[in-house]
Amino acid sequence: MSKIISGFSKFTKEEKIQWLTENYFNNQQETINVIKQYWNVDNDLQELHDDFIENTISNFYMPFGVAPNFNINGRTYVIPMVVEESSVVAAASLVAKYWSTRGGFKTTVLGTTKIGQVHFMFAGDKKELENYFSLNKTELFAATASITKNMEKRGGGILDIKLVDKTEKLPNYYQLHVTFETKDSMGANFINSCLEAIAKKFENDDIEIVMSILSNYVPECLVRAEVSCKIEDLGGENPQKFAEKFYQAVKIAEIEPYRAVTHNKGIMNGIDAVVLATGNDFRAVEAGAHSYAARSGQYASLSHCSIDDGIFKFWIEIPLALGTVGGLTALHPMAKLSLEMLQKPSARTLMQIMAAAGLAQNFAALRALTTKGIQHGHMKMHLQNILNQLGATEAEKKEITTYFDKRTVSHSAVVTKFNELRKPKINWVSFLNCDEVRSKLSTLKADAKPVFGKMNGQQMIEHLSFLMKISNGEVNADYFIEDEKSARRKAFLNTEGELQVGFKASMLSEEPYDVKFATIQESIDDLILQTENFKNHFKTAKIENHPFFGELDYEYWQKFHVKHFTHHFKQFNLL
Amino acid sequence: MSKIISGFSKFTKEEKIQWLTENYFNNQQETINVIKQYWNVDNDLQELHDDFIENTISNFYMPFGVAPNFNINGRTYVIPMVVEESSVVAAASLVAKYWSTRGGFKTTVLGTTKIGQVHFMFAGDKKELENYFSLNKTELFAATASITKNMEKRGGGILDIKLVDKTEKLPNYYQLHVTFETKDSMGANFINSCLEAIAKKFENDDIEIVMSILSNYVPECLVRAEVSCKIEDLGGENPQKFAEKFYQAVKIAEIEPYRAVTHNKGIMNGIDAVVLATGNDFRAVEAGAHSYAARSGQYASLSHCSIDDGIFKFWIEIPLALGTVGGLTALHPMAKLSLEMLQKPSARTLMQIMAAAGLAQNFAALRALTTKGIQHGHMKMHLQNILNQLGATEAEKKEITTYFDKRTVSHSAVVTKFNELRKPKINWVSFLNCDEVRSKLSTLKADAKPVFGKMNGQQMIEHLSFLMKISNGEVNADYFIEDEKSARRKAFLNTEGELQVGFKASMLSEEPYDVKFATIQESIDDLILQTENFKNHFKTAKIENHPFFGELDYEYWQKFHVKHFTHHFKQFNLL
Repeated sequence: MSKIISGFSKFTKEEKIQWLTENYFNNQQETINVIKQYWNVDNDLQELHDDFIENTISNFYMPFGVAPNFNINGRTYVIPMVVEESSVVAAASLVAKYWSTRGGFKTTVLGTTKIGQVHFMFAGDKKELENYFSLNKTELFAATASITKNMEKRGGGILDIKLVDKTEKLPNYYQLHVTFETKDSMGANFINSCLEAIAKKFENDDIEIVMSILSNYVPECLVRAEVSCKIEDLGGENPQKFAEKFYQAVKIAEIEPYRAVTHNKGIMNGIDAVVLATGNDFRAVEAGAHSYAARSGQYASLSHCSIDDGIFKFWIEIPLALGTVGGLTALHPMAKLSLEMLQKPSARTLMQIMAAAGLAQNFAALRALTTKGIQHGHMKMHLQNILNQLGATEAEKKEITTYFDKRTVSHSAVVTKFNELRKPKINWVSFLNCDEVRSKLSTLKADAKPVFGKMNGQQMIEHLSFLMKISNGEVNADYFIEDEKSARRKAFLNTEGELQVGFKASMLSEEPYDVKFATIQESIDDLILQTENFKNHFKTAKIENHPFFGELDYEYWQKFHVKHFTHHFKQFNLL
Repeated sequence: MSKIISGFSKFTKEEKIQWLTENYFNNQQETINVIKQYWNVDNDLQELHDDFIENTISNFYMPFGVAPNFNINGRTYVIPMVVEESSVVAAASLVAKYWSTRGGFKTTVLGTTKIGQVHFMFAGDKKELENYFSLNKTELFAATASITKNMEKRGGGILDIKLVDKTEKLPNYYQLHVTFETKDSMGANFINSCLEAIAKKFENDDIEIVMSILSNYVPECLVRAEVSCKIEDLGGENPQKFAEKFYQAVKIAEIEPYRAVTHNKGIMNGIDAVVLATGNDFRAVEAGAHSYAARSGQYASLSHCSIDDGIFKFWIEIPLALGTVGGLTALHPMAKLSLEMLQKPSARTLMQIMAAAGLAQNFAALRALTTKGIQHGHMKMHLQNILNQLGATEAEKKEITTYFDKRTVSHSAVVTKFNELRKPKINWVSFLNCDEVRSKLSTLKADAKPVFGKMNGQQMIEHLSFLMKISNGEVNADYFIEDEKSARRKAFLNTEGELQVGFKASMLSEEPYDVKFATIQESIDDLILQTENFKNHFKTAKIENHPFFGELDYEYWQKFHVKHFTHHFKQFNLL
């Protein structure tokens, strides 16, 4: 299979979709419909979104949710969250409310310095390089003047340029390590432009620039968020025990990398949701956070807990390089709306809001893990997802949710329960009710063709009469069925199961019997008569032998006839 | 400000939006419009998306792009990418095409084992614990039977349960370290359910379970992707130099954490885009990747490079815990479509596709960084984003893009250029053209009211004649203007600027002069006459004094009259 395509990026959107669906999908039209059902009805708006990246063919909907009641430094926020994982928004909301009555979140920005580096090779004398750097340092700053002009107006710019010797790690390798303040912009373009201008100025015959690029490792662009209260105010049945177990869980995340990674992953569930909602770059934030978690040489938790003098304290310190101007923040209408929802925060304020969202998420996870277990809540959501996937109705969702309230949710268990509910209700024939039987048979023609099998209408009725005669003692079914086999077979009569198409007692011939009566009406009359006889017979009789199920009493014979009538009435679409 | 709300999650979507926009936005209706313009027109589809998480009020559009021409193990893929950052899809497409003619990507799955842990405290004798564990190990497996049944049918399940002593790190702390194979499902719910069942079984009076949870640190769920070719086949002007510089850049990322973090961030740009597109969990993948990058104790690059025997080789090893069944993969129509685009891959195949996407992204970044610099491409995209933000038309985009082809893009420079383009074109009056002047004045009434100022129509024409008489030597403007001042003022006549409303030479009186002629037609005839005289006068004259601009030659007087006529014609809406 070779589907190499040239000039794809030059295709129009329609042409891209055409080629793609023609070559990579089985049902082209259906695929095109799915792609286009996600287009916005407003063409201009859709074009705006198409232009964000290249080769855009549609929009991927991420749910946009909101978590209210975040009290951060005394101010109440509703936090916008964009995330595809269930429970994240619910957890944030619950924890925000919980801490809103316990003093809320206290946050502080510990630093906002960002970093970029010019990586270069220099094989000569280090002293010479140091001299060259010292002599030219002012020039390096000057080289960025046109780029930094506007940033400086906003109070940002280049803070310092340092020469770093890395030759111990890699021969001839040095850096210009540059620190930046980028105020409310994330600053990636600004930093990279400055670095390239610096590199261009710095380069000479002996200095080979390898690359100039910002770093997403930003340990000095740091924010802290904290919650604390008296242990007794934590609430619940045993706040002391809760606090201690919570503390243990955090300690474990501090010393055990396998746990720390997931612990921090939970924090990022909350942070990334706000990063996405505000048009920031979650890869940058993720890279910065996890590398910071590994800074000591052992990957560890980003949050910490203390219990001192009866005070429970839980806090996080995390690097967050964000922007509230530039990039997508103003371009994406929903990102813009998110920032308005947050009262148009500065980058510093946004750092604090996100840190609070991360800490809240972490608190929720640890609380669940150390009490009911994470699966309790997860599984509730998981159940709803499976039900949505199965296309369950609201009524079905309600019934199945109630059913799983105390049961273990698994995909197969839910599917089984769902199928059970969806199984068409069987319209069992009340064969003892003469009127019902006559009414259902009223439209049946003697030569009616069956849905399955070989009998015609009248033959079927006489077949029912024949089995009825076996049960009322008129015909002796002389087939011996062993007790053990009978017991196994009779079990079926206690179920909701129907007789299967093709089921046939071995005593019956392959071909239908010839009819006994001249008209179908006479056959029906006979069936009613035999049924009356069956009722009367069992006033005294205890059991009669069934050619397949063995010895059956009145109750079991009734169970058999219900299934038998229903089976054959279905054979002629009479139900 | 206290906007604490109770029972928010119980509100309907409309009620949530109502409360939110009322309390947190200035323009409520406009905000509601933005929120709703992103709803899908199909209610059922919208409800499906609303149900993915909690408190959903709208959809956040992430662009869905595609990168064709990925040759992976001989098979050609179009890779779906969901990412908000520009250049990512373009880079993937370019690099995919590049390597498709150089042998493509070779990928291998190195392992698929996932991990979960039961964390517990045990203060007693370790030997006793070990005995207890040995005796009960079979029971622990058995406790998960109902959960693992289906997974085992698919070839997965619990691989092993180990008791781990962590008391050196934290007193009394032990783990049950459980390894899993979850086949095509990400397996988070499966693993957590198993762990909770194991913990319940394992718990006793001396064993306190702290928590049971999967780990996102998955160093044994690992995939490798590689590209390689002869150095001479790398193409470009100097393939040897390119290879060496590329190699240096990778070596730097191997030993310098500041660089490594960004190096890996670039890899994740490619990987997360596919993670999102296929309905997987990017926080899990990010946590796994970065913690793996830090496993040696020093954060380092996930990709590596070698140059041996004239062969350039570039590869990545990265842990990726993914699912192609369960979760959002089937629920989200676009995730489902992504998987179909990838020919319904197994989780193993998806790991390989993502590793290739990550390696491609990394290759693109390093190639740009070590050659033209990262800003070259970025700034092109940045420019487009700014232009979109400004609402530039296609024609304006084209003109400005051409303008910035060789210039440095900065936000302010683009805005300046854009404003310059947008500035209304001035319809300068060709005052030397008698026909044009007469034609423009043909509709002007003598007593016409001006848009600004105090003159009527005829007074304005006689005012133009007066200035014309100064320039043709008939009236002597006896106002001395210092050379220095004149030079400064004359500079204005060289610009595209118009005379400002309210501009008036100090020599002129505040009130308009009485008209000299009986009719406006006579005034116009006089203006034409004075203009003819002006042309003739300067056949011999060199300069005439202007009461504001000082001594002007013929060229400067023309520049003045153009502005002066235009200014006054605008005063009566004649242009």
